[in-house]
Amino acid sequence: MVHVSSVPGSYYFYYPRLVCVVGVRDESKATTNFAPVAWTTPLSSDPPLFGVCLSPKTYSHQLVLKTGEFTVNFLTQKHAALADNLGRLSGRETDKVKALALDLEPGEALSTPILTVAYVAAECALVERHHVGDQTLLVGEVHQIHAAPDAFDADGVLRIRNLSPLLYLGSNRYATTERHPVFPLGEAATKV
Amino acid sequence: MVHVSSVPGSYYFYYPRLVCVVGVRDESKATTNFAPVAWTTPLSSDPPLFGVCLSPKTYSHQLVLKTGEFTVNFLTQKHAALADNLGRLSGRETDKVKALALDLEPGEALSTPILTVAYVAAECALVERHHVGDQTLLVGEVHQIHAAPDAFDADGVLRIRNLSPLLYLGSNRYATTERHPVFPLGEAATKV
Repeated sequence: MVHVSSVPGSYYFYYPRLVCVVGVRDESKATTNFAPVAWTTPLSSDPPLFGVCLSPKTYSHQLVLKTGEFTVNFLTQKHAALADNLGRLSGRETDKVKALALDLEPGEALSTPILTVAYVAAECALVERHHVGDQTLLVGEVHQIHAAPDAFDADGVLRIRNLSPLLYLGSNRYATTERHPVFPLGEAATKV
Repeated sequence: MVHVSSVPGSYYFYYPRLVCVVGVRDESKATTNFAPVAWTTPLSSDPPLFGVCLSPKTYSHQLVLKTGEFTVNFLTQKHAALADNLGRLSGRETDKVKALALDLEPGEALSTPILTVAYVAAECALVERHHVGDQTLLVGEVHQIHAAPDAFDADGVLRIRNLSPLLYLGSNRYATTERHPVFPLGEAATKV
């Protein structure tokens, strides 16, 4: 493939990425703030750690440092408009739970709620944070996972035949996965 | 949605994720080692930083600490078998460039090659590393991006109509994106 060279920032080369809606309790307003974040990654298997990048300027960042915990919530493509709205509103001015009529479920291992609409969510306790460039990497230890009963197969793999996860493309655009795995094409790929 | 609770590790809740093939020069063998990594994330816009999680046990980890740089290379779904092979072979025993007949292009800003087959690649200089759980987060500053001329639109967004990026699902299974954006459905979404 012929390549054209360009400076950093020219392309969103690192998308698509799963939309991860980060939930944090806002005790001062007796609500929970939810914000979509695309810069996230698993960081460790043992202990199970999951990292979320937030600008220190964001309201969510401020809240996580106060409560010491957060939830991560993953949506299907049906909820693209919800994710987009969560990104446009600021929890500083708006109680998004009220404004968007969000249904929540209480946390079990910790005390931050998850989104009822999520196909999978995880409760995380903040265990480390690292300042990296213009963001903070907030490192959460995963304490509990909550999944829709049909979302994952016996190997723990997402059933993309039944469920279309919401992916972010950059520039407020969203995509999802094709319903069939591309590899392998043999027996394993036919698992439902 | 009704949720079933489970312990961490039960599900690959954080997949699908882009397959990112990390390239590192192996000076002792006069080759470059390429290994697929799914635990990666952008970490900062200014400066432009990109993070790659590697176990300290891996050969790539050892090489990055020696050379102080790496490339990240992204593949389309056509190259799922290549990604799978890169993951199965170890650079300790095998020169993957020879074994898999890989075509390389030299780096421009730095000295690590990229994969010719990649639809986009970036040259990164190691600027920080953080030990997080059982992995190391290697933080690279992006120096140069190399993209196929038709891969991204004028907004820098991947043209998923023309190009199907390779995503990892866990358990050696792979997927790709649907060819149409799911949101928004108006004018912006019709851009090619």
